[in-house]
Amino acid sequence: MKKHSILIILMAFLSGSLCIAQESVSIVVEDFIPSSVNQPGKAYPQVNSEGRVRVRIEAPGAIKVQLDIGAVKYDLVKNENGIWIGESAPQDEGFHYYQLNIDGASVPDPGSKYFYGAGRWGSGIEIPAMDQEFYALKDVQHGLVSENIYFSKITNAWRRCFVYTPAEYEKDSKSRYPVLYLQHGSFEDENGWSTQGKANLILDNLIAEKMAVPMIIVMDNGYAYKPQDISNTDGRGRPASSFEEVMINEIIPMIDTKFRTIDDREHRAIAGLSMGANQTMRIIMNNLDKFAYYGGFSGTSNYPSSDEIDVDTFLDGKFTDGEALNTQINVFWLGLGTKEPDPFPGSVGAFRNMLDKIGLDYVYYQSPGTAHEWLTWRRALHKFAALIFKD
Amino acid sequence: MKKHSILIILMAFLSGSLCIAQESVSIVVEDFIPSSVNQPGKAYPQVNSEGRVRVRIEAPGAIKVQLDIGAVKYDLVKNENGIWIGESAPQDEGFHYYQLNIDGASVPDPGSKYFYGAGRWGSGIEIPAMDQEFYALKDVQHGLVSENIYFSKITNAWRRCFVYTPAEYEKDSKSRYPVLYLQHGSFEDENGWSTQGKANLILDNLIAEKMAVPMIIVMDNGYAYKPQDISNTDGRGRPASSFEEVMINEIIPMIDTKFRTIDDREHRAIAGLSMGANQTMRIIMNNLDKFAYYGGFSGTSNYPSSDEIDVDTFLDGKFTDGEALNTQINVFWLGLGTKEPDPFPGSVGAFRNMLDKIGLDYVYYQSPGTAHEWLTWRRALHKFAALIFKD
Repeated sequence: MKKHSILIILMAFLSGSLCIAQESVSIVVEDFIPSSVNQPGKAYPQVNSEGRVRVRIEAPGAIKVQLDIGAVKYDLVKNENGIWIGESAPQDEGFHYYQLNIDGASVPDPGSKYFYGAGRWGSGIEIPAMDQEFYALKDVQHGLVSENIYFSKITNAWRRCFVYTPAEYEKDSKSRYPVLYLQHGSFEDENGWSTQGKANLILDNLIAEKMAVPMIIVMDNGYAYKPQDISNTDGRGRPASSFEEVMINEIIPMIDTKFRTIDDREHRAIAGLSMGANQTMRIIMNNLDKFAYYGGFSGTSNYPSSDEIDVDTFLDGKFTDGEALNTQINVFWLGLGTKEPDPFPGSVGAFRNMLDKIGLDYVYYQSPGTAHEWLTWRRALHKFAALIFKD
Repeated sequence: MKKHSILIILMAFLSGSLCIAQESVSIVVEDFIPSSVNQPGKAYPQVNSEGRVRVRIEAPGAIKVQLDIGAVKYDLVKNENGIWIGESAPQDEGFHYYQLNIDGASVPDPGSKYFYGAGRWGSGIEIPAMDQEFYALKDVQHGLVSENIYFSKITNAWRRCFVYTPAEYEKDSKSRYPVLYLQHGSFEDENGWSTQGKANLILDNLIAEKMAVPMIIVMDNGYAYKPQDISNTDGRGRPASSFEEVMINEIIPMIDTKFRTIDDREHRAIAGLSMGANQTMRIIMNNLDKFAYYGGFSGTSNYPSSDEIDVDTFLDGKFTDGEALNTQINVFWLGLGTKEPDPFPGSVGAFRNMLDKIGLDYVYYQSPGTAHEWLTWRRALHKFAALIFKD
């Protein structure tokens, strides 16, 4: 009986807290300003100091209009002019994909610029981050981001990568540079890192502050399938990936031919986010003659498992000799947001336990207050890029 | 009376023809295939052999959904699953902007890729053209398209241009190249020429066929205003343009510093479409020490007037001496689509009359079956680029 009473009091207390919390949620701070990634001249969407997103769309004949952001749908309200307006709960700092839903149709917001992610070209919004200076467009020397189209014989398809060259690349036609191969995540593509990822601005700023070595960054597409494999899909509906083969036999030789690279392992790094972290870990472990630096942002190759890793069988035993790997890999770097959902904390945690066990030296970074999203990865790149090519 | 009878017969005949024409319009050829500029994996929008555009969108709660293309709105029809589908009348060959209208909301089609034009990022569709090979992605050497960010002191703003460098640019770090400055039209921006304009593919193909001299192409943004001018708008709501000043004092010096150009007038061309044709004509005529080639695609500086041009006052008398201009300008090139709307045929016609009068040698090209749209301009670039830097 006593226990029961305490439970009732506790429930009453919690329920009271929840009420207070809900009330405070409903007070919206009226300091909205247009998002920094709006289309030219567009006043909406807007963001306020709490990180709420307010959208506005004219749809006089519509019955129900919603803002769909962070896996929650918020009802908008129609005014007498047929204009719908409304806002979300506060969002995490950083970049988020979102969409509108108009009478059941999921469509991009005509006010925002569009980004490729979540398997589609669609709307994005930027919630200003406390540390946004590191990826801001500043009065420093800016490198170029070049679109490079190439034909892949392995996949029998045209492919594309974006290549960042540091500002000084164009100034001295003889100097050669190390290369970071930097990969996107699942349902994203080669556009991600140089647009919502801001890889070019992050490097421009780091290089201007002499915090990073001037380097080339190659951002390619992690989806690569041979024609004969396309009809054979796995449980997730995907064919066997040939990305490693494309990377080793096509992308790297092409980049080393077309750009002024230093083409040895000590001047080649590979990193990726989520699916890209998984892919690039496999690539470096299978090709230690080609890379000396690894960055895994929000992902490891044991994904999605959180089980203890059997080092003898994991990736064909590539992690059995931690000491040998310490001499071969100059920087082994892992990063994760503190708000990442399952299974990421568990699978990255299990992977770290294995590294600790084999005595592999690695850097582990936690991005405060961010989930499985681009601010986590911008921060990861910022930290990782400052450490590489310095041995 | 006799004349009157003939008129009636003629009217009856014409009216009969119109009926037949309308009936034949309603028969839709069922050979639709996905548009070439769809988002990855999207089956709609589609295009058929007549050039009709068929769209499809799930909007179970919607009351009215329309396809808005070519300034006409076509009603879609809802099926039992809440999916709306429908198609347009046949469209001209080439690239068109379009949008969907869902219960009064004008939004991009979630099936298409997005392009900047008509003053917005929005949907685009490609109607295959009979001559599409000249801008097709082919197995030839491909140049790079580089995004170049720079700060403009004149406008006190960050600006951006895209720079095409031919494939051989990366192969020989000493060779230098002529430069074409290529401008977009009204309500477009620096993205246009290298995406829907296909300038890079057009040049890749021309250079591979040895039809054009390898050249650099600079595609900047034609909107440039000084901070003190922004509040003083003209009748069209625009401040005085400072684009010429930005081009001459900032863009050209930057490009000549950053890229391996041949920096004299004989190796510099300038061209533009519509508003860009108007702007670049003024720029070359004011700066004949800097440019020796001009291309005006669907536009001239007497726009929108079709009146006879007074050569003594037009552009401060810059066209008075046709013979002198013939020695200074190596190629003076004008292009226009045969289906362009008013005032373009009239104003370009009046301009040509003036050129004829002063005896200025020029090339005039008509793009068959195209209006004031990108296929006209792709063809114009294809013709123009093959003529320049050959003197």
